[in-house]
Amino acid sequence: MQKVKKVGILTGGGDCPGLNAVIRGVTKPAHDHGLTVLGILDGFEGLVEGKAMELYNKDVSGILATGGTILGSSNKGDPFHWPEENNGKIKIVDRSKDALKNYQAWDLDVVITIGGDGTMHIAHQLSQMGMNIVGVPKTIDNDLEATDQTFGHDSAVYVVSEALDRLHTTASSHHRVMVIEVMGRYAGWIALNGGLAGGADIILIPEIPFEWEVVYDKVVQRNMMGKRFSIVCVAEGAKPKNGSIVVKSKDLKRTDPVQLGGVGELVSKKIAENTGLETRFTVLGHLQRGGSPTPFDRILSTKFGTNAIELAIKKQFGRMVALRGSEIKSVRIADAISRQKLVKPKDQAVLAAHAVGVSFGTEKL
Amino acid sequence: MQKVKKVGILTGGGDCPGLNAVIRGVTKPAHDHGLTVLGILDGFEGLVEGKAMELYNKDVSGILATGGTILGSSNKGDPFHWPEENNGKIKIVDRSKDALKNYQAWDLDVVITIGGDGTMHIAHQLSQMGMNIVGVPKTIDNDLEATDQTFGHDSAVYVVSEALDRLHTTASSHHRVMVIEVMGRYAGWIALNGGLAGGADIILIPEIPFEWEVVYDKVVQRNMMGKRFSIVCVAEGAKPKNGSIVVKSKDLKRTDPVQLGGVGELVSKKIAENTGLETRFTVLGHLQRGGSPTPFDRILSTKFGTNAIELAIKKQFGRMVALRGSEIKSVRIADAISRQKLVKPKDQAVLAAHAVGVSFGTEKL
Amino acid sequence: MQKVKKVGILTGGGDCPGLNAVIRGVTKPAHDHGLTVLGILDGFEGLVEGKAMELYNKDVSGILATGGTILGSSNKGDPFHWPEENNGKIKIVDRSKDALKNYQAWDLDVVITIGGDGTMHIAHQLSQMGMNIVGVPKTIDNDLEATDQTFGHDSAVYVVSEALDRLHTTASSHHRVMVIEVMGRYAGWIALNGGLAGGADIILIPEIPFEWEVVYDKVVQRNMMGKRFSIVCVAEGAKPKNGSIVVKSKDLKRTDPVQLGGVGELVSKKIAENTGLETRFTVLGHLQRGGSPTPFDRILSTKFGTNAIELAIKKQFGRMVALRGSEIKSVRIADAISRQKLVKPKDQAVLAAHAVGVSFGTEKL
Amino acid sequence: MQKVKKVGILTGGGDCPGLNAVIRGVTKPAHDHGLTVLGILDGFEGLVEGKAMELYNKDVSGILATGGTILGSSNKGDPFHWPEENNGKIKIVDRSKDALKNYQAWDLDVVITIGGDGTMHIAHQLSQMGMNIVGVPKTIDNDLEATDQTFGHDSAVYVVSEALDRLHTTASSHHRVMVIEVMGRYAGWIALNGGLAGGADIILIPEIPFEWEVVYDKVVQRNMMGKRFSIVCVAEGAKPKNGSIVVKSKDLKRTDPVQLGGVGELVSKKIAENTGLETRFTVLGHLQRGGSPTPFDRILSTKFGTNAIELAIKKQFGRMVALRGSEIKSVRIADAISRQKLVKPKDQAVLAAHAVGVSFGTEKL
Repeated sequence: MQKVKKVGILTGGGDCPGLNAVIRGVTKPAHDHGLTVLGILDGFEGLVEGKAMELYNKDVSGILATGGTILGSSNKGDPFHWPEENNGKIKIVDRSKDALKNYQAWDLDVVITIGGDGTMHIAHQLSQMGMNIVGVPKTIDNDLEATDQTFGHDSAVYVVSEALDRLHTTASSHHRVMVIEVMGRYAGWIALNGGLAGGADIILIPEIPFEWEVVYDKVVQRNMMGKRFSIVCVAEGAKPKNGSIVVKSKDLKRTDPVQLGGVGELVSKKIAENTGLETRFTVLGHLQRGGSPTPFDRILSTKFGTNAIELAIKKQFGRMVALRGSEIKSVRIADAISRQKLVKPKDQAVLAAHAVGVSFGTEKL
Repeated sequence: MQKVKKVGILTGGGDCPGLNAVIRGVTKPAHDHGLTVLGILDGFEGLVEGKAMELYNKDVSGILATGGTILGSSNKGDPFHWPEENNGKIKIVDRSKDALKNYQAWDLDVVITIGGDGTMHIAHQLSQMGMNIVGVPKTIDNDLEATDQTFGHDSAVYVVSEALDRLHTTASSHHRVMVIEVMGRYAGWIALNGGLAGGADIILIPEIPFEWEVVYDKVVQRNMMGKRFSIVCVAEGAKPKNGSIVVKSKDLKRTDPVQLGGVGELVSKKIAENTGLETRFTVLGHLQRGGSPTPFDRILSTKFGTNAIELAIKKQFGRMVALRGSEIKSVRIADAISRQKLVKPKDQAVLAAHAVGVSFGTEKL
Repeated sequence: MQKVKKVGILTGGGDCPGLNAVIRGVTKPAHDHGLTVLGILDGFEGLVEGKAMELYNKDVSGILATGGTILGSSNKGDPFHWPEENNGKIKIVDRSKDALKNYQAWDLDVVITIGGDGTMHIAHQLSQMGMNIVGVPKTIDNDLEATDQTFGHDSAVYVVSEALDRLHTTASSHHRVMVIEVMGRYAGWIALNGGLAGGADIILIPEIPFEWEVVYDKVVQRNMMGKRFSIVCVAEGAKPKNGSIVVKSKDLKRTDPVQLGGVGELVSKKIAENTGLETRFTVLGHLQRGGSPTPFDRILSTKFGTNAIELAIKKQFGRMVALRGSEIKSVRIADAISRQKLVKPKDQAVLAAHAVGVSFGTEKL
Repeated sequence: MQKVKKVGILTGGGDCPGLNAVIRGVTKPAHDHGLTVLGILDGFEGLVEGKAMELYNKDVSGILATGGTILGSSNKGDPFHWPEENNGKIKIVDRSKDALKNYQAWDLDVVITIGGDGTMHIAHQLSQMGMNIVGVPKTIDNDLEATDQTFGHDSAVYVVSEALDRLHTTASSHHRVMVIEVMGRYAGWIALNGGLAGGADIILIPEIPFEWEVVYDKVVQRNMMGKRFSIVCVAEGAKPKNGSIVVKSKDLKRTDPVQLGGVGELVSKKIAENTGLETRFTVLGHLQRGGSPTPFDRILSTKFGTNAIELAIKKQFGRMVALRGSEIKSVRIADAISRQKLVKPKDQAVLAAHAVGVSFGTEKL
């Protein structure tokens, strides 16, 4: 049986603290095993268009603590649905054969694919065309069923928590309701964990549709008890129980994480109108995705990278690394994709509510 | 001559890191001199409505490093133009006599007034009615001619710089133009200093009206040189040379520092439309005003507080503390108010442009 | 069956970020359940000598993010071995009956005891005298078999990682070997995790006795490869394979965490002597124990506190909360004490070595 | 008159946050003016031994926020007193002619020399041999008379302040006296500013010899007032009024900034012995010199670099940049060297004592 000799590596999708630590975590032990590592540039775009560079130790030296990805990423990401411009018109074409051609031309034995659910879907499809894939899961939202935690999430929670610490003092001094909108279109983990760590009084998440009256009551009740301020942490995907969010600026894409005119602004305005209290809102946006990873994320990323290269060497293709308890395990990519991990109101949220008197905008959870 | 025995202290206007350090810097030496310190609550509102509490050492213990103000502040701030509700209607009345009455009833010898230009105006008017005032200047924008630096500014610049560090990695990895909107309606110091510290490529400030074409060119030029990202730091009051900013959301108050639908969003959209590059924008908003002050601000605040109480004891009323070089001096409040310190394109901005190739959106400064 | 009505709470042993978050996590839900919470001061000292104060919501408001413990702690900690001074002489006496007497006098139904292995031993003994106990494990070293992680550890690792980031730049610029000594007398988790997160080149931990020659070789080898600097992260309990550490300053207590003249200094000197390279060392000491907990620790502490009060209400006495995967469970205190979780060279350390080329000062693990 | 075409740049002496920002601040505008920039490696060592590399824009891209110096530094620093090894013996020789030879061989028009007082002395001597020099002052201690502030100092104060914040919580919870030893052999600025920012209760600096009894009294007095902890910030060069510091470990070089067995340890022990209170001490050491510069230092460094290249272009040789108020000026190197700026007890220290009740270990200042 042929040994694995040359490993490709690519990073797909949005930014996430820890990507570089994974790349380093793959490359260093790969070199120790005598393998060649090819860094494929700008995600699947590099695979389709043949852009890559060999990674030497000096390339991954000093990147443990840096945000972003030295390999670049791209939104033009799906080889199976490739936007091709022709006379000013965009046509969607299938360029997966180009991806495969480059894979073969580069003489790769495996591609270590770091990305979220979308990236893993594409990787899975490519693997069915004969490409060997090992996956490293990446989502700042921490919403993958297959792993206890993904890297980047702890860093995002850190940013939210730090922002809430800052907003707290102004809220308290100026007797205001401060609303902060954080990431999380379908899963509320960033809002829940960031809100808990930052001492939010109300946390609104997609998993628990809220009632406006309950939100107003909580704010008013705090005011009556002498706490003339409240902190509201809202996931961008939070929505009221009966009804939907009316996004003011209709032309803003719903996919943009910096969703101005979104739910944070709405919550802020409605609280002001219905309680008479002064409110302010802030949208954290891209601050949650960039910057140096926390120590937790650096360690997890390093371990993920090292385990991925071990899977590659052992030819455990089609598998993805995952954290279970304190150990790194692996799961089949085919089993992992499309399985989202949402906040379960009954356990996680109730606990939070008990712990710090947080309201989720519902009378009973 | 009667000695000063009882000192009032109040904090007016918006939040600013270092307010508590000033309060502590006033109170501790006041006690050492045997004075009584009365904390007037919620700015001038407390003076008008008679809300105050005596400050003991335990009250100011441990507040050096905390953001906000233990005395509270209020927007209902001007005794001379007091909003009074009557049958649901707001009428503006003059309640300066109530302020004076409380000053006398509390037996105060002087009020140490911490606040910005608006607060100093009011303090000056009150002093003309016979109230003794000592001022401590406060503006996060650092736009007072009378002092080399105001406390809070270094902390705001710190927040901007940290945010730019975070945005940099995403911009670089994902080949994007990242636009950040920071505070500064009339003076561009936060954008200039924060942008310099965070390595911005373009800084747009109110003092230098920019040309759209120059902004686009800079971004495109960087792209052509292989730098497939740019960081644009925009003061909320920045505006194009010929024309004005069309604020999208008209109903947003122009006075709201978190000016969504403002210049940051506009700059982001226009760069995207005119260069074809992907752009994202972030509005920092209230994060710039809250949280623990930097060591620089803690020291400056402490010195300001201590010098203010010395002015009070020496009956140097009508004066305001100020930083000159490395020393704390004082100036007459009457001379200090309404004198704004703006960025001078010829020195500060040219230097910055030289230093790091920053563009201010003008061909020649 | 009588319901639980009054809960005591105490914090024992050394400082650890997150103690206040646990106290808050206990007190808030306790009040929601209508319970009275009595804060016992200075650990077991307060229980023996009758020092306590009732905790109201205002007492735990705003303490989530603060280091230390509002209840205080004490080294005079063991009621069964109480140091009593008599005519200048210290005699050890048993004052456990005083502890029990106060427990009864205060009408407590249970004491929630937050502390490390020593504290849990005492708690277990007290429970055998009839006192109801619920435990919350606390060790900055993370060396308890019963729980996947203890609060405070992530914060300590954060401090180590941040310090290594700082030392890295000087090491690299000035071509030096930088040695940092961190906590961990028996378990090397802080050195291992902090070293991984901070990119250490050599990590020396108690679990893997090191060989001097292997340490020197690694440093020299890096130098020959053009990396003219190395970072060595040493647990205070690390020791060479054949031999023991000669602590220079004999009069320094071995129990003092700031063990100057300890292994860090020795490693630094011996590397300098044997490689001719310039070395410097730093002892992190108490910086690892204090300050605001990381978001991770704030969340874990809050959950631990909330689960502890639930155990108390359900009269699950003699049990201790514990993290298992992503869930909070509980274990019998009697089963948990004296069971240390050490770094297993075969899994954790080998992984680390693979990941980043870290040496543990042994030829083969 | 010949125009300046090629500029050398070197960094001498110990590490200091902001060195890279100066290098970038020199290089970017130099390129804009069409100059060639030669980075001389490892300080004067590179000048003597002919080690240098041309600096391109890509070399200085992204280094604004990084600690250390990309050019390296060396302790083998003085061309006039060069340690030469011969048969195992070190002989001091004069190699200044080699320095001059390389300067000429490289065709340099000027060398921008970044360093402290020692570096400036050497630069001055070299300039008398015919080398053109422009200086950028560097001292973490901020003890240069010629400039209001040096870069790196604000970052060092930041580290001290952050460490004191951490130690505060443990001191308070565990009723301890925490002693921290910081840099400053002759000037106490780091201890003074760091101590003020971190809320120290006692600050001991070289400029004000302290009396042991006054130190003990302050600690005991605080204890009696219910403040069962104290924070003592000691400059490494602090000494008692009548007597000198007995350094325990005699073999430790007095020049080593991490002076274990130094004054911090002594102060800690004597307080314990004389007050009966529990004490702990920490030596911050190299943590004060490394890591990312604060925004303040990034801005000052950038301005220093830009002004240095302007001086070079204008052939203002023999001059050094300096901060005066808010402006960058220049002074003659010959006038600047050997002129130290010490803390003046009468103004700076008295102010501090007033402000926060700090004791300097003297009855009367």
